Amino acid sequence: MAEKEQTIGLTIKKTDDFSEWYSQLVLKAELADYSPIRGFMVIRPNGYSLWEAIQGYFDLVIKKIGVRNAYFPLLIPRSFFEREAEHAEGFEPELAWVEKRDDDEEQVAIRPTSETIMYDSYGKWIRSWRDLPLRINQWCNVLRWEVKQTKLFLRTREFLWQEGHCVYATKEECDKEVRMMLEAYQKMCEDLLAIPVIAGVKTDAEKFAGALYTTTIEALMPDGKALQMGTSHNLGQGFAKAFEIKFSDADGKENIPWQSSWGFSTRLIGAVIMVHGDDKGLVVPPRMARNKAVVVPILFEKTKDAVTKKAFEIQKKFSDLNIIVDDRENYSAGWKFSDWELKGIPLRIEVGPKDIEKKQVVVVRRDNGKKEFVKESDLEKRLPELLDEMHSDMLAKARGFLEANIVEAKTEGEFKKAIDERKLVYAYFSGDAKAEKEIKDWSGATSRCVPFNEPEKEGKCIFSGKPVKKRTLFAKAY
Amino acid sequence: MAEKEQTIGLTIKKTDDFSEWYSQLVLKAELADYSPIRGFMVIRPNGYSLWEAIQGYFDLVIKKIGVRNAYFPLLIPRSFFEREAEHAEGFEPELAWVEKRDDDEEQVAIRPTSETIMYDSYGKWIRSWRDLPLRINQWCNVLRWEVKQTKLFLRTREFLWQEGHCVYATKEECDKEVRMMLEAYQKMCEDLLAIPVIAGVKTDAEKFAGALYTTTIEALMPDGKALQMGTSHNLGQGFAKAFEIKFSDADGKENIPWQSSWGFSTRLIGAVIMVHGDDKGLVVPPRMARNKAVVVPILFEKTKDAVTKKAFEIQKKFSDLNIIVDDRENYSAGWKFSDWELKGIPLRIEVGPKDIEKKQVVVVRRDNGKKEFVKESDLEKRLPELLDEMHSDMLAKARGFLEANIVEAKTEGEFKKAIDERKLVYAYFSGDAKAEKEIKDWSGATSRCVPFNEPEKEGKCIFSGKPVKKRTLFAKAY
Repeated sequence: MAEKEQTIGLTIKKTDDFSEWYSQLVLKAELADYSPIRGFMVIRPNGYSLWEAIQGYFDLVIKKIGVRNAYFPLLIPRSFFEREAEHAEGFEPELAWVEKRDDDEEQVAIRPTSETIMYDSYGKWIRSWRDLPLRINQWCNVLRWEVKQTKLFLRTREFLWQEGHCVYATKEECDKEVRMMLEAYQKMCEDLLAIPVIAGVKTDAEKFAGALYTTTIEALMPDGKALQMGTSHNLGQGFAKAFEIKFSDADGKENIPWQSSWGFSTRLIGAVIMVHGDDKGLVVPPRMARNKAVVVPILFEKTKDAVTKKAFEIQKKFSDLNIIVDDRENYSAGWKFSDWELKGIPLRIEVGPKDIEKKQVVVVRRDNGKKEFVKESDLEKRLPELLDEMHSDMLAKARGFLEANIVEAKTEGEFKKAIDERKLVYAYFSGDAKAEKEIKDWSGATSRCVPFNEPEKEGKCIFSGKPVKKRTLFAKAY
Repeated sequence: MAEKEQTIGLTIKKTDDFSEWYSQLVLKAELADYSPIRGFMVIRPNGYSLWEAIQGYFDLVIKKIGVRNAYFPLLIPRSFFEREAEHAEGFEPELAWVEKRDDDEEQVAIRPTSETIMYDSYGKWIRSWRDLPLRINQWCNVLRWEVKQTKLFLRTREFLWQEGHCVYATKEECDKEVRMMLEAYQKMCEDLLAIPVIAGVKTDAEKFAGALYTTTIEALMPDGKALQMGTSHNLGQGFAKAFEIKFSDADGKENIPWQSSWGFSTRLIGAVIMVHGDDKGLVVPPRMARNKAVVVPILFEKTKDAVTKKAFEIQKKFSDLNIIVDDRENYSAGWKFSDWELKGIPLRIEVGPKDIEKKQVVVVRRDNGKKEFVKESDLEKRLPELLDEMHSDMLAKARGFLEANIVEAKTEGEFKKAIDERKLVYAYFSGDAKAEKEIKDWSGATSRCVPFNEPEKEGKCIFSGKPVKKRTLFAKAY
């Protein structure tokens, strides 16, 4: 048993080697595992339940606004990729092609994203203004043959995501809903994941292949790198033209519609791990936790039965919290504490013989380790409160970190220094795609977005001296 | 408008050309569509919502019994298929291989099912009796390169399914849960899909490639063909040996565990369409319907506002029924009735100016077209009742059809005649795999199962004369 107590926890501190800490946490908390095929991952039940929390939350959100789920084929014919030139160029290098079985069939690739196969159908389905807006989403797997090293949840060749694809009669409607979806993403990050984000527009260099413009939400990871948490694109009319999507308006006149697409992926799980995890392991944001608490009965030979009975009583009474009772024998209470801390369960409830006498329990918050004695009669009120307080505190802590790490650079020198110090850096920038490539080459940073909440204020690009109205946010990024 | 009224409904009767009726219904009710790639389908929102109903129901069932969801890679290395000989032989012909990108990597195929890739991980994860039972499920897409003609939902190269994969310490536990899952499937078919099934064991010829034995539930379609609705396999210890899954028991002794797998697919949607659909279109079993009712306000110029207001009042009052209000202008009430009948929405609520005066509405059941006047004040009680009655009646009707079409054959002649008459046929049969192949060749029928509810009664195989204890059920099958 002593041996187990040594080996269960993490052996690397978050501040000592962030990357190793992350990998060890993912494996030891049984969130994901490497696959025998390079670049692929197995999402284990502990990790998948975080994805289910995200799906459950977001699926309700989109259904309320009239989005309907559908499913389009995994395989996409070569000619489809070629219809929209920028899109083809963007994805071609990462496609996985399927060996042809019939000579008369076109070559097909596994979907890296579904614009083309969906819009081919849209072209058949949409006839008149009555068919618009069309709002369809799919939850599925996609595959991009990345060559960089695998990082579980953050960079794998296959990942899970949702992709929403909508069609509108006018640019105004499209613009409005592109922004509406980004706001829904931002709200989800804050309300569910407890992660604050910065919302804005991508520069030309960073926009989606084939989009008119891309909006994004960006979060800051503890290692100073930004992580793109979700994007919402106005695709303009380019895909509609390429896939012959047309609609007749009320007067019978034929028009080309406007399109949007928006998506987030299992990367979000990586963000949750990085932002909230600590030296003891994962910290699951309370609203994402399927099991909100674990009861650990403190077992002594004489009082074992009474204590265990009480533990199950609590489990039964608060069935909506899906409480786990850890009555495993042959493990010490301390070992169990470490085990559940590693796995990030939000609340630990300890019940010992003395607690039973006093009609109380001990409740310990995973995020800050604070203990409190709670009368049994107060549990019904206190448990939800503690979960809410934990959520707010986690969000506030992450927001504090984000705000403390944003700086402005007024010169190239300041810019390089701030990037090297792993900050999010505001700078006046012309937005020129070629210039941005050069900046990346010498600084390692990419533009993350031009934030929406930036006030317009005349300035000069710190690289080219050109006049600009808004600052751009830069960082090294995942 | 007249033109629309002619073209909206089905132009083929269910009894005239069942196969054409099916295809037309699937397309016109917008359940699914063909894909540009042969053998693939697009599941449209109306069809996908039926899958979501199935997922929603079954996911709760499995979570209650301790099954956890996970996600394993889409691609499986060639060597994995080869480890279990029968399994390899069963799936090899239908594999879609991915073109190799790196010379040093093994060739990979798109998963046709996930036993091998999952059990490779299980071999790493399972160490001791404490890790058992392990119960994991995944909802995913699979691909089998069928050469037969595509039939939407029933036979496509890619389909969606759930696959549960469990590991047990003993054969007894495994047997018990194999049967438990089959019973959960049976209950779902009856309670959700309103389709009665016959549960039993597959013959050797029909069992899953690599299984010790396969249990199945079989339903009878209106064209006299059986449809396998779900299977639950005891895989024995073969895969465990092939993938080196071992566990040490409480005494430290090493053992080989027993495994089960169980699955159903989007085929179930095809069964729902075939069993319940009629000449007007789809009939969605009430518990599967996201939108339980549609309100069609009967619009006259003078009373339009009052009637429309009432329609939205009803929608708002019964928000848990997700009622649609069809206030589209330029469509007649009759056209709307046909449209919603085609799409199978369970209840139609008509509200006209006279109904408002009388504080009543007309409610029409989709399955039997029965109309009734319901006082507004009774709606709260009557709507759920009507939905329940509709479910029971649909199930009873399907059960009546099933029972009316089962016959026993005592000779080969009777057998052939009954199969030609498209019956489900009971016959004493030796279970010999070679004999079964011959029976299929001359009769077109395959064994569906040896039903569990068959009493043991000595008999002689009607083909070979060998003594047998239980009858086998045969039919032509999808």
